[in-house]
Amino acid sequence: MNAPTALAHLTPELALRNTPDALIDALKARFGSNCSTALAVRTQHGRDESSFEAPPPSAVVFAESTKDVADAVALASEYSVPVIPFGVGSSLEGHLLAVQGGISIDVSRMNKVLSINADDLTVTVQAGVTRKALNEELKSTGLFFPIDPGADASIGGMTATRASGTNAVRYGTMRENVLALEVVTASGEVIRTGTRARKSSAGYDLTRLMVGSEGTLGVVTEVTLRIYPLPEAVSAAICSFPSIEAAVRTTIEIIQLGVPIARVELLDVNTVRMVNAYAKLTLREEPLLLMEFHGSPASVKEQAETVQELASDHGGNAFEWASTPEERTRLWAARHNAYFAAIQSRPGCRAISTDTCVPISRLADCLLESVAEVDASGIPYFLVGHVGDGNFHFGYLIDPNDAEERTKAEALNYALVMRAIELQGTCTGEHGIGLHKMDFLVTEAGAGAVDMMRTIKHALDPKNIMNPGKIFR
Amino acid sequence: MNAPTALAHLTPELALRNTPDALIDALKARFGSNCSTALAVRTQHGRDESSFEAPPPSAVVFAESTKDVADAVALASEYSVPVIPFGVGSSLEGHLLAVQGGISIDVSRMNKVLSINADDLTVTVQAGVTRKALNEELKSTGLFFPIDPGADASIGGMTATRASGTNAVRYGTMRENVLALEVVTASGEVIRTGTRARKSSAGYDLTRLMVGSEGTLGVVTEVTLRIYPLPEAVSAAICSFPSIEAAVRTTIEIIQLGVPIARVELLDVNTVRMVNAYAKLTLREEPLLLMEFHGSPASVKEQAETVQELASDHGGNAFEWASTPEERTRLWAARHNAYFAAIQSRPGCRAISTDTCVPISRLADCLLESVAEVDASGIPYFLVGHVGDGNFHFGYLIDPNDAEERTKAEALNYALVMRAIELQGTCTGEHGIGLHKMDFLVTEAGAGAVDMMRTIKHALDPKNIMNPGKIFR
Repeated sequence: MNAPTALAHLTPELALRNTPDALIDALKARFGSNCSTALAVRTQHGRDESSFEAPPPSAVVFAESTKDVADAVALASEYSVPVIPFGVGSSLEGHLLAVQGGISIDVSRMNKVLSINADDLTVTVQAGVTRKALNEELKSTGLFFPIDPGADASIGGMTATRASGTNAVRYGTMRENVLALEVVTASGEVIRTGTRARKSSAGYDLTRLMVGSEGTLGVVTEVTLRIYPLPEAVSAAICSFPSIEAAVRTTIEIIQLGVPIARVELLDVNTVRMVNAYAKLTLREEPLLLMEFHGSPASVKEQAETVQELASDHGGNAFEWASTPEERTRLWAARHNAYFAAIQSRPGCRAISTDTCVPISRLADCLLESVAEVDASGIPYFLVGHVGDGNFHFGYLIDPNDAEERTKAEALNYALVMRAIELQGTCTGEHGIGLHKMDFLVTEAGAGAVDMMRTIKHALDPKNIMNPGKIFR
Repeated sequence: MNAPTALAHLTPELALRNTPDALIDALKARFGSNCSTALAVRTQHGRDESSFEAPPPSAVVFAESTKDVADAVALASEYSVPVIPFGVGSSLEGHLLAVQGGISIDVSRMNKVLSINADDLTVTVQAGVTRKALNEELKSTGLFFPIDPGADASIGGMTATRASGTNAVRYGTMRENVLALEVVTASGEVIRTGTRARKSSAGYDLTRLMVGSEGTLGVVTEVTLRIYPLPEAVSAAICSFPSIEAAVRTTIEIIQLGVPIARVELLDVNTVRMVNAYAKLTLREEPLLLMEFHGSPASVKEQAETVQELASDHGGNAFEWASTPEERTRLWAARHNAYFAAIQSRPGCRAISTDTCVPISRLADCLLESVAEVDASGIPYFLVGHVGDGNFHFGYLIDPNDAEERTKAEALNYALVMRAIELQGTCTGEHGIGLHKMDFLVTEAGAGAVDMMRTIKHALDPKNIMNPGKIFR
């Protein structure tokens, strides 16, 4: 694998297939105005938050039911034309691009919360429900769904990418929180995987096979999720450290001691400076940890005391605490503004996000070497991390018209990923493989495991119509 | 599906295939005395803790390394002969029976703990390490591995059946705790799945596909597991209730409130009586809950207070507490002795164990109707449950020579499983499908999902040599 091809931005490998007029006619006959071939609609569905570009899909079907999805897939299968499921379009890895042509199936109108089982702490939703809409619906029940990728992504999309976010250190990722699925297979059949029971040993774990399969094995139409009681008490803290290493060492000790911390996010000094400038804050210009504790009042107090002690041992200072929702929001603003602050720090730039995740004992090594490399490169960047999980994101702020900068960013990402894999980590903690990391997947998992994935793909989708050209070449 | 075939004890469906002498010769040439064809050895490897019987395998290979497993599988593949992985032989569902003939690969000599990463809370073991041996090795580190099926099973076997046990309510099952695997595929190739990172979005979740696949997709040779800090404080309690319903309602409220209880086990009044008689205890002859709390001293105290209050609201009384290891062992003796106490209560009997698991809100309904049915049948039984997960086991104590009793037990289990599935639960919470529940799997998952499982099986094991005849017909 050569570094220059690792991050081949803006030039995905195209293998366009023909979409016969007969298919478009059949879709229009079946879906009427819910099938659009307008260029604006197709263009909107042919891109995502990645920096890739490809021709738009030939048509967009707005599905309003599982039956709509099944019928659209069955028609596409009949003509061997690719289908690409679309939620809100927030993929960072090119998942939504029609690199082999085909049609987009937009599930955003499938936005009903189908049942809330407060007694069982489960909820069943249609795939187009977004995480924020779900939490809005749950508000009156005293329950919440904790998984929070940056975007207000659809639950279907979060399932497809095995998403996580800031709460994963305590509540797990989509891997741990999807209990059951309804899926439309490559032939347009509707199947169900899993049950609402908390555990099961009944056959192959098709649920977990679908979670993270990026639309390449089927279209997720319904999702049953675990939900959680809103904690009785919540406390948040911000703490500055003399170095990234000190912040990371503190995090490692928090996890090792088994403190049930809910969130622990790192911002490097660059990011703190950018946020101060953008949001007119006066945060100490040092690396910082943002932390949140959930539990009973006594447990939260105890967690906070333990963490404060650990942080102090590593030179952590300027602790600031927040326990009301308003104060917490103010504290978390630094984290939430990081991306926009970074983008604004270099007008016209584009942020290229990395997504490595390593065992936590290797986090300091992985981070420090990578910081040294990017500092030496001269590329502006920000660095934020879900450090409790060993997952972090550099955002390289490149001039999209400067080929040299792009090449430098590619080389930095390549070195970073190779380091993470060497340290027994992964090239992607939460964004997925998409178009971006196919070669890295081979390096990480080995040719044998990737062959096994490809064998499964071929068996379940013999015509290769389910979001083809993603995960593997 | 007809009730009488649902629990076709003692008569598995045989489809014996020939094991050519040439394969035996090749195995003996490769493995010397580590390949045995002695009848006693074969017989020992041709049965498990289920009540099924089948002819023994043609040979047993004692593997001492991954390479041994790979070579044995490659030879078996060459001759299209089945291979059955064997750990300690504690399957309850006939997983180890050579129903299509073939050879047994015993991995019990692959019993090394390969690395303990205390900083990352992970451990990597060979598949033959048992859960107790692992915890013995971990003792000096202040860490432990919580998953505890009844038997001292091998980690490979626990992976294959997606095992859990009494701690799953807090720590999860093998599904949540296996991070990475080394697997020998059906062609004898060695692949690795997953990494030591806590989370990843890198391609299909082959790890979770292998967990629970019952040896039908490959032989697990190494397992990387999550481990946990030994809790600072542990407290156990026993509490009697006026009815099963009161005990179950208490459990439901504990879970709903988000109390991070580590264990909550139900014993019905039958079981309490049997345990009193067997172990000369003086437990109040009422249904009881055995509970355990892990955490800081303050958190444990708080959890205990909350639970005591909830239990009292439901008539729970006779609370007895234990906090030293010795006291706790005495308290848990009631649970650990349940099986033996039950067997002794009816000399010569055989216990047939059920394994349904339902959403916790349905637990009272499912249990109470099933208890009424078994009471009406006249079959003696015991009932224990991992009720925090909605999982419970009836043990029907039948006379193995009485066909009528067997038929009655079959009918009871059939009614129980149908009820559990109707209540959105599963036919197996932790034992697996094996030979026992193939029809139930179709009822539970639907023909479409089972077809998808079969398609995957066929793609990854085209010669159908990996533990054939299990999970599906």
